[in-house]
Amino acid sequence: MLYDIIAKFDKKLHFPVVMAHCDIPCIVYDPIGAQISVLTIIRMVDLLNELKAKPSLTLDEQAEFLRLVNQKENHGIKVKEEISVIWGDYIKAPQLAQYPELHELVHNIMLASSQAKQHISREAAQILLQQVNRFAEIFWATKQIATFSAICPYPPEESLIYPNLQG
Amino acid sequence: MLYDIIAKFDKKLHFPVVMAHCDIPCIVYDPIGAQISVLTIIRMVDLLNELKAKPSLTLDEQAEFLRLVNQKENHGIKVKEEISVIWGDYIKAPQLAQYPELHELVHNIMLASSQAKQHISREAAQILLQQVNRFAEIFWATKQIATFSAICPYPPEESLIYPNLQG
Amino acid sequence: MLYDIIAKFDKKLHFPVVMAHCDIPCIVYDPIGAQISVLTIIRMVDLLNELKAKPSLTLDEQAEFLRLVNQKENHGIKVKEEISVIWGDYIKAPQLAQYPELHELVHNIMLASSQAKQHISREAAQILLQQVNRFAEIFWATKQIATFSAICPYPPEESLIYPNLQG
Amino acid sequence: MLYDIIAKFDKKLHFPVVMAHCDIPCIVYDPIGAQISVLTIIRMVDLLNELKAKPSLTLDEQAEFLRLVNQKENHGIKVKEEISVIWGDYIKAPQLAQYPELHELVHNIMLASSQAKQHISREAAQILLQQVNRFAEIFWATKQIATFSAICPYPPEESLIYPNLQG
Amino acid sequence: MLYDIIAKFDKKLHFPVVMAHCDIPCIVYDPIGAQISVLTIIRMVDLLNELKAKPSLTLDEQAEFLRLVNQKENHGIKVKEEISVIWGDYIKAPQLAQYPELHELVHNIMLASSQAKQHISREAAQILLQQVNRFAEIFWATKQIATFSAICPYPPEESLIYPNLQG
Amino acid sequence: MLYDIIAKFDKKLHFPVVMAHCDIPCIVYDPIGAQISVLTIIRMVDLLNELKAKPSLTLDEQAEFLRLVNQKENHGIKVKEEISVIWGDYIKAPQLAQYPELHELVHNIMLASSQAKQHISREAAQILLQQVNRFAEIFWATKQIATFSAICPYPPEESLIYPNLQG
Repeated sequence: MLYDIIAKFDKKLHFPVVMAHCDIPCIVYDPIGAQISVLTIIRMVDLLNELKAKPSLTLDEQAEFLRLVNQKENHGIKVKEEISVIWGDYIKAPQLAQYPELHELVHNIMLASSQAKQHISREAAQILLQQVNRFAEIFWATKQIATFSAICPYPPEESLIYPNLQG
Repeated sequence: MLYDIIAKFDKKLHFPVVMAHCDIPCIVYDPIGAQISVLTIIRMVDLLNELKAKPSLTLDEQAEFLRLVNQKENHGIKVKEEISVIWGDYIKAPQLAQYPELHELVHNIMLASSQAKQHISREAAQILLQQVNRFAEIFWATKQIATFSAICPYPPEESLIYPNLQG
Repeated sequence: MLYDIIAKFDKKLHFPVVMAHCDIPCIVYDPIGAQISVLTIIRMVDLLNELKAKPSLTLDEQAEFLRLVNQKENHGIKVKEEISVIWGDYIKAPQLAQYPELHELVHNIMLASSQAKQHISREAAQILLQQVNRFAEIFWATKQIATFSAICPYPPEESLIYPNLQG
Repeated sequence: MLYDIIAKFDKKLHFPVVMAHCDIPCIVYDPIGAQISVLTIIRMVDLLNELKAKPSLTLDEQAEFLRLVNQKENHGIKVKEEISVIWGDYIKAPQLAQYPELHELVHNIMLASSQAKQHISREAAQILLQQVNRFAEIFWATKQIATFSAICPYPPEESLIYPNLQG
Repeated sequence: MLYDIIAKFDKKLHFPVVMAHCDIPCIVYDPIGAQISVLTIIRMVDLLNELKAKPSLTLDEQAEFLRLVNQKENHGIKVKEEISVIWGDYIKAPQLAQYPELHELVHNIMLASSQAKQHISREAAQILLQQVNRFAEIFWATKQIATFSAICPYPPEESLIYPNLQG
Repeated sequence: MLYDIIAKFDKKLHFPVVMAHCDIPCIVYDPIGAQISVLTIIRMVDLLNELKAKPSLTLDEQAEFLRLVNQKENHGIKVKEEISVIWGDYIKAPQLAQYPELHELVHNIMLASSQAKQHISREAAQILLQQVNRFAEIFWATKQIATFSAICPYPPEESLIYPNLQG
């Protein structure tokens, strides 16, 4: 019943051209923000694991511990936001036709971000990185931009998917 | 190639139980926040249309105009956030099996929120309301809570889907 | 002396009609946002008490501990914000004449929110819930909307005051 | 009925000492933040009135206009926040016994902030300043700190209540 | 006199090793966030200039106008934040010895960001881009990473300084 | 090469007058916000040191511990923001000519804020206070306002630089 009303509106409104536009419209999208946030999560996990290796923590180290967990948390939130903005604003019918996996992939990134937030686990963080890299790969492909994989130029020195801009 | 690595991780990690949990885990989810934001958008559109009816705007009315547009904008962002949090944290495999339309519906809510942000259009805002109401209907159904439709008890007096808690 | 100047301004300005309007004016107010935040605080307390029952916490559990405390903190802030917005924007002379307890009640909600933030205490959180429920009861009464009490449809399954919209 | 339950809790909990503490507890309170925000509102109104004096606005001036209105808006929100934090965290039974006008004054500051947000009106902004200055006067009095009135050392060069710290 | 006290503290504390660390310590720094924000500013200016070309604006176009100005504003703030975080957390004595221009350059970026916020001016935005690109060039040089200049793969298709990661 | 392009723009644009204006332009600047944040940091350190004196912490005290560290963290961020806004918006060529130490001082405040965030150290916090006080001293001097030093009228009762407004 609800859908009947929507169908009626669709006929009345005819937004086809607008629907192909983005939110502002036409903001500058780039998955690099999400990718850097995942790298930060991995870096926080590495620093947290250094603390885990100690037999016990002083109060100063506990303060450091909570700053690291908070940063991991914030960047988990940022990954979710950055990816869902690109998905919700830029990904439209043409991109979905080309890459039908996109809904599933984005949803998996949400779940994997939660995992990375809930655990101090390098593996959970790396699963998230693979998924966000896959998203970046698809994103650039929808724009006909070739990509390459390279080690990011700072810790945690993980492989990232970059657009190939050197021609 | 990327997916091979993910598959390898999946075997190593075995997160099946964890995957069924939510982000904190187990925060209190409720679509009413998103629904109220859509009502606010509709209310802002109604007030904006009152300004539109005037032949010209004084600077004071232009200030009111921009406050209304900013509120509409902020609540458009809030709808996107509230819905994608529930979708990304609460919606898992069991809910998706029951309601395979969920990915598409949530994506449409993102697009419709953008429409509501970009236009001063009661119809665009009402399409968004239908979709968010449909999301609420599914949300409560996944929890075996019956719902009913009622006029919300404040302007803009639109129909909202509420959980039936009076037994 | 200061008040003399205000009195002078009051005579000059004559804002009586405007004073009866709300901030935007006429945003969509609803105490449910504050009520859900109190439920979240209670839920966090319950999860924190599960951790408290353990003889000692691993670093992973300490990370969970701080995520729960942070969520409790954020929702304590949110209760304060949501209630003081309704109080500061919607509650005017007519509502105060009808319910002279409102200033005291809102101030007590501020103090009780601080208690709930400072302690891991189900009782402190429940006192806050009673007060916020009382605020909701008054809020709906000022709009001539009948209310009922029901168990909220998710953990922590506490009684909430809802507007009766089913007629 | 609700209050019966609260009374029961009160007996059980005995928070008297804690109730006399502030939120963190014991954060550094100072009304100067709210006072500076009111000055900013007045400054924005003065700059907006300069634009109002022009026969028409270019698009560049309209952009300036909206930046000024947005700043006025943000500082209106900030006044409300700063004052309600001091009221909700610091003002307790002893201060209320000494200054029974406090609830009314704080509520009037909320209403006057809304007025200052809704209008481009120097008078509305100045009423807010008088009220916030009165709040500052009471605040310092509850701490046995003498105050004085002086012109603030920057535009809009309005009188502010300052604590007398020079002995 | 103040500096005497600081000097005394410096002798007492001996923070030399710590001083060489960054804020968390060791967060993942990258100037690309600031660079993308400048591109967004330029894009907003281009869209604003399209509106400027029209003889007059409907209310719907005025709403679009204010959304574009707000985005430009937000990204002006973001440029300032991103650059001052890298400057304040990563840039230490060694980098300053190598690039004594850094303080001046960062300060000029602050001033140029303000210009870009205050004006609808492609030239002001492009001056900002040159400065932020220069900052990126120095940043990568301090890490011994070669850079190249390339057209960014989306509107406004301006030249950006990228790290050369393809070896 | 980049600088050649900037030089070219400079000739074309001639922003000299504009360059002497501030961001909005002409917002109300005051270093007191940064100073109060440093006092809050010192206060948090004092409360944290009380916890440090205990042989071990209960979970409730650990919750208090993390609330204190988070507040210290937030105010460390606030100091950085408040100072860099004044530096980036108000400090221009004339102020730099008068006080060439300003770039170095502001950069040191960034580094000292990081120290105060990373450590539970009264000395680190006090170094930050000296630097922020020095900044306040210069700020008021650039406006030809005399200053005095006085104990702030609340804990932690440290010396602050205030503008002398009593004539």
